[in-house]
Amino acid sequence: MTSLQSYVCGRWVAGTGDAKTLHEPATAAVIGDVRPGGIDFAAAHQHAMQKGGPALRAMGFQKRGEMLKALAAKLHEHRDELIEIAARNGGNTRGDAKFDLDGASGTLAFYANLAAAMPAGNCLPDGEGLQLGRTPRFWGQHIFVPRPGVAVHINAFNFPAWGMGEKMACALLAGVPVIEKAGTPSAMLAYRIAQLVVDSGLVPEGAFQFLPGSVTGLLDLLGPMDTVAFTGSAKTGALIRSNQNLIARNVRVNVEADSINSAILGPDVESGSDTLEQFLANVTIDMTQKAGQKCTAVRRILVPAAMVEEVQEALRERLQAVKIGNPLDGDVRMGPVASADQLRDVRTGIDRLSALSDTLLGGSKPMEGPGYFVHPTLLRAKDTSAALLHELEVFGPCATILPYSGNVDEATDLCNRGGGSLVASAYSDDRAFVEQLVLGISPWHGRVWLGSEKTQGQALGPGAVLPGTIHGGPGRAGGGEELGGLRGLHPYMQRTAVQGDRAVVGRLFGSEGG
Amino acid sequence: MTSLQSYVCGRWVAGTGDAKTLHEPATAAVIGDVRPGGIDFAAAHQHAMQKGGPALRAMGFQKRGEMLKALAAKLHEHRDELIEIAARNGGNTRGDAKFDLDGASGTLAFYANLAAAMPAGNCLPDGEGLQLGRTPRFWGQHIFVPRPGVAVHINAFNFPAWGMGEKMACALLAGVPVIEKAGTPSAMLAYRIAQLVVDSGLVPEGAFQFLPGSVTGLLDLLGPMDTVAFTGSAKTGALIRSNQNLIARNVRVNVEADSINSAILGPDVESGSDTLEQFLANVTIDMTQKAGQKCTAVRRILVPAAMVEEVQEALRERLQAVKIGNPLDGDVRMGPVASADQLRDVRTGIDRLSALSDTLLGGSKPMEGPGYFVHPTLLRAKDTSAALLHELEVFGPCATILPYSGNVDEATDLCNRGGGSLVASAYSDDRAFVEQLVLGISPWHGRVWLGSEKTQGQALGPGAVLPGTIHGGPGRAGGGEELGGLRGLHPYMQRTAVQGDRAVVGRLFGSEGG
Repeated sequence: MTSLQSYVCGRWVAGTGDAKTLHEPATAAVIGDVRPGGIDFAAAHQHAMQKGGPALRAMGFQKRGEMLKALAAKLHEHRDELIEIAARNGGNTRGDAKFDLDGASGTLAFYANLAAAMPAGNCLPDGEGLQLGRTPRFWGQHIFVPRPGVAVHINAFNFPAWGMGEKMACALLAGVPVIEKAGTPSAMLAYRIAQLVVDSGLVPEGAFQFLPGSVTGLLDLLGPMDTVAFTGSAKTGALIRSNQNLIARNVRVNVEADSINSAILGPDVESGSDTLEQFLANVTIDMTQKAGQKCTAVRRILVPAAMVEEVQEALRERLQAVKIGNPLDGDVRMGPVASADQLRDVRTGIDRLSALSDTLLGGSKPMEGPGYFVHPTLLRAKDTSAALLHELEVFGPCATILPYSGNVDEATDLCNRGGGSLVASAYSDDRAFVEQLVLGISPWHGRVWLGSEKTQGQALGPGAVLPGTIHGGPGRAGGGEELGGLRGLHPYMQRTAVQGDRAVVGRLFGSEGG
Repeated sequence: MTSLQSYVCGRWVAGTGDAKTLHEPATAAVIGDVRPGGIDFAAAHQHAMQKGGPALRAMGFQKRGEMLKALAAKLHEHRDELIEIAARNGGNTRGDAKFDLDGASGTLAFYANLAAAMPAGNCLPDGEGLQLGRTPRFWGQHIFVPRPGVAVHINAFNFPAWGMGEKMACALLAGVPVIEKAGTPSAMLAYRIAQLVVDSGLVPEGAFQFLPGSVTGLLDLLGPMDTVAFTGSAKTGALIRSNQNLIARNVRVNVEADSINSAILGPDVESGSDTLEQFLANVTIDMTQKAGQKCTAVRRILVPAAMVEEVQEALRERLQAVKIGNPLDGDVRMGPVASADQLRDVRTGIDRLSALSDTLLGGSKPMEGPGYFVHPTLLRAKDTSAALLHELEVFGPCATILPYSGNVDEATDLCNRGGGSLVASAYSDDRAFVEQLVLGISPWHGRVWLGSEKTQGQALGPGAVLPGTIHGGPGRAGGGEELGGLRGLHPYMQRTAVQGDRAVVGRLFGSEGG
């Protein structure tokens, strides 16, 4: 039984107040707790501002990149131990845990590589310089500089390693100290990673602090140089955005929230094709990986009416073949959801969607045993225009087939009814269909993933978030943006236009070396 | 006596409800009114979404650029008539009015030129494509596409032409219809421009709508594809950001608010130098142009202690030479402030700052006659650490000298106490000082303007906002960003990562023509 501590102001601190228990989702056994009280948020904020920030900025991009590289190696070194914790407290299969952990170390390593190509110091030119006056003498150059504030990262329970790792990578490389709040139900993995980070001595004191409990009081203390990045429910995102201190002081808030992602099968895709195979394989992975607890997982499956029967049979077959059980058992392919709360929400959600659908597989009925297990559930919408299908995210192994005519406008319309999503995937070898669909759905999506004959075996599926391309989406998906290479540093930096004598501005801040 | 109408749903509509009177600031005479009620906001929103947006997007970047060019020409053609209105309802001198009007037509023309280099259609690649998979086959390309929503622009009273013009230029070029709300006290100029825009037939129906009154009810109707851009007070900015509908639906909000901008004289600048001359000339212009009613105007003047006596004498002399009066009189160099409310606020503000300062010139005492005139007021802080000096924006011809040691860290600290500003200007020929200062103040500023011997006569001063470089600032300045070339289109577009077969993604959406 582990009682998780916070790392603030250079030491590990036991929490106070009522304990929130941590469970083993596969057995519902209590294996730890978190007491969220007793943290001096003001001191933690000051510690980051006064110690962590200056120490990080003294390193410059290059040394911070080396730090990220070493952190990636540290995580990799402890991979087996961390997989075990992810299985125990997160209900992750070995594959799920690797996806999370390798995502974290991979993203840290990606940003380390990016740093190698960045300038010395802390000033990053943004675009080319430009003439501003009557002659080229008066010159402008945009730059990005680190904000002398703190990055407060409110992470989700579903990716304790990757979620913390990707946010940390961007903020730390930008030169901004982090305060990482873990998603409490699965906090044991983040806690162990925090211990590794602290013990490694790789990160300057004050640049990394960790909270397994709440950050509520901290938000009221933040100022204009601070950034809040949140991953979680749309409801909590709206609560954070409503915080009066954050509004009054124009604190930056970056939200990555729920979304009702879709996969679209093109009308050209035929039985037995590689493109169909890719579609079926990716949908099956998306529904069952992490027991469907991915913000990018597919929830709506758009299938041309002529292919519905074939697709639903194939998906049923594949989903039925997925072995469900305790992830500590080697051959299990899908574990439980993360907590009793999640189990309740997922089962309620399945009931609500089932009222509008035919249940092809699974459903909300309980599974045997004490753990938080859910049946893989495949539904088929009776009426694809029912609003709830496009609004309710069931954060578990559940998705709904929406038959459509095969018409690109209908696919676009159905897809966009999600009201803003992180990702849509489309499977087609018809370029005209693909072009029209992409242009139609892009305004409502942060990412569009295209499967076709040529991509077979070449790429991770649409559920994977890659550091080189952005992650986030408009509207329902939170309106935020993370990653995307250097774009991921921008929330932690100020863009400033420097205007003046070209010989000064170009040489000091641009690429016109002196 | 003109009663201003709204242009919504393809027709001019008289308002209802209590009239807000419009005045001639030079005489306080009532010359018009606005009745804000009776507008069907839901219909206006739908009209923009259903007619204006599709019509604009059917044009593509190229034709929209041509439209902006023609609009710029249209404004220029009516310049004399518009100058007269700016003098009458805005209290603008001829020079002030030209600054506003030429700013509008210049920004429209700038974006027209930018469009000429943009691709056909509506899809703008963002950066280079990148390899995402094990081989270059799986490829990523970020794109920007227009959001199928509406841009609601809430403009300030001080730049009725430029403020509307710069926001319109970016949204319309992006492909997004606008609803322009004018700053009510000076709305006659924006109203006349709106008439010209509508009568020109250059902008497709539904892509331009105009409100001289309130938009309050409209904000409650906006959705995830809409953008609100506001220029005005920090207080109103916070009110907009607090709107529960905007928060719940993740509507984008871009705020450009007050700021307490500073000008910094470097310790190296000597009597009689060109750099000193530039500093004195720019500070004088900034304080008196538009009667100090510029969001970018200097409010705090940092002067090395050794130069304070010389600088204050020189500024007094220059400010005293500025002829104040009715802007319709040809040789007048400074007019009144825009309204009775502004006059009251400015005089109260001068009193509050005067309590902490020595008054070197001017003060809050009334001027003769009925108009809204204010004395150019130069103060010198008794204690530069007094918080109010860095917090209170007096939106009129008033600035405060803050003596400092000449030390760059002290200058940085004083400058950054503004809590986030639109612009700081620094005058120095010492590159080490300039480099250190720029790096120190950039996180707190959207723009840094550098004056030196070589820039004499080469450029507009720091108060001018140029379309090629960004306008906005962190914290107190609102946390928003406008203009900056293509960057200015981003608030109206969605960035989407497209991932897939390189032969498809690169050719259809990247620069890999096929």
